[in-house]
Amino acid sequence: MMEIDRRRVGEAIAAFAALLASGRAPAMGGESPGRVAPSHDMSAMPAHWHGKERVAFLIYPGFTALDMVGPQYMFASLMGAKIDIVAKSLEPVRSDTGLIFTPSKKFDDALVDFDIFCVPGGTQGTLAAIRDEATVAYVREAGQRARFVTSVCTGSILLGAAGLLDGYRATSHWVTKPLLSIFGATPTDGRFVRDRNRITAEGVTAGLDFALSLVADLRDEKYAQGVQLLAQYAPAPPFNSGEPETAPKDVTKMIDGMFTQLKQDMREAAGAAYAKYNKP
Amino acid sequence: MMEIDRRRVGEAIAAFAALLASGRAPAMGGESPGRVAPSHDMSAMPAHWHGKERVAFLIYPGFTALDMVGPQYMFASLMGAKIDIVAKSLEPVRSDTGLIFTPSKKFDDALVDFDIFCVPGGTQGTLAAIRDEATVAYVREAGQRARFVTSVCTGSILLGAAGLLDGYRATSHWVTKPLLSIFGATPTDGRFVRDRNRITAEGVTAGLDFALSLVADLRDEKYAQGVQLLAQYAPAPPFNSGEPETAPKDVTKMIDGMFTQLKQDMREAAGAAYAKYNKP
Repeated sequence: MMEIDRRRVGEAIAAFAALLASGRAPAMGGESPGRVAPSHDMSAMPAHWHGKERVAFLIYPGFTALDMVGPQYMFASLMGAKIDIVAKSLEPVRSDTGLIFTPSKKFDDALVDFDIFCVPGGTQGTLAAIRDEATVAYVREAGQRARFVTSVCTGSILLGAAGLLDGYRATSHWVTKPLLSIFGATPTDGRFVRDRNRITAEGVTAGLDFALSLVADLRDEKYAQGVQLLAQYAPAPPFNSGEPETAPKDVTKMIDGMFTQLKQDMREAAGAAYAKYNKP
Repeated sequence: MMEIDRRRVGEAIAAFAALLASGRAPAMGGESPGRVAPSHDMSAMPAHWHGKERVAFLIYPGFTALDMVGPQYMFASLMGAKIDIVAKSLEPVRSDTGLIFTPSKKFDDALVDFDIFCVPGGTQGTLAAIRDEATVAYVREAGQRARFVTSVCTGSILLGAAGLLDGYRATSHWVTKPLLSIFGATPTDGRFVRDRNRITAEGVTAGLDFALSLVADLRDEKYAQGVQLLAQYAPAPPFNSGEPETAPKDVTKMIDGMFTQLKQDMREAAGAAYAKYNKP
């Protein structure tokens, strides 16, 4: 029995290896080099290690690239999954740090029932997205149809503006977390907060933690541990300044003070969108 | 004195806020919305909080996006810095997980003395880059001219192939770390390893830690703590599986087994490039 298990593990490794090493990423836009080669004996691999999830990340001008690229790394390791990068048009989109991404789908071509729909955050760019009717309408429809509705950082403010967090516990970047209540969400502590099929992660880097955890849910713990090891995700921040409670007081005050106006603008814009799109 | 210091801190916050909140990113390609507005009183902000670093990230087909986007987030917060994304041509470049980036500069236009030159890793894509003469030649020249020569993940194998790690302590993704000795580097433990002006980070997510640490060196601890808080970088991985020593043994064996062929190919390619470009 032990021997059989060992052999099966060996075969699983070979299959996993062949899949991931030779174009480990599920491709966007149709082709899929990450799919198993027909010659491979899939029966040796745990059946649940291979899925067919459809994953979509929204992007918009001024979004924070790391909010999207962190989780995208994790979800790209889901064998058999297909990832789309969805924007208002197929024109390149510039992130808040100046990175330029080409989307794979535009709104009209991305109205499907995604398994994971993920909205990254940002500052002025997210505010502009909240004020953009077409973007909020797309988030609302894609979110209503998705199996998991997820966000990183201020992406939850966009989800809330679209009426998707009403009655849900949620989180956001610590700066914007208090805004959650304006659209009926309950601000809740946690690196990420899951309430039914809504998963909201706190600021920027929390996307890594939420996504790796969701990989474990969609496959299993061993699979996710493999992905973590592949990413060598053994973080060692040089300071203990990642949360407002652990950062030096003057640092927290400085960063919080940077966003007084943005918070007010987001509160108004999200409140207005929520009221407009969510009338009974 | 206390009052004066408080006022100065307040002014610094206002300046920092205005700079970062209104297009906090140093722009690519010439324009620079992140620069201070002329109306601002810069004398209130510590002079060393504003720099003029030139930062370049190499990208190439099949690179791992997270290796670049993590550090790019951190360096984009350096007030006054300018970041370029450099590739062989200005054509869009596809990452190993299918993300499509538009470079800001091509090799010929990016032969300047960068303050930070950073090379991300990958698997098959990095192997192809090591085999590409033009790419290795560019890495060699840009690296020889840079103030800090840095890498994330298997990016160090590309640095080494270009002869930039000969006689240096260095690290890499744990899978490829043993390869470092083929081009005269000494494999060394650490989330990232700094030896003189070479800084090599281990796999993928280690880019966040090395870059935040370098932000502290280039500005100061308080500045870097502010950036960490902005990124809410208080990581909480769901498992303790980020290093080969802490992951379950069968998981480490599985992931290591995925790369047997790649390691052999990288060893040959990097050894050949090193011998060719680094003859006495």
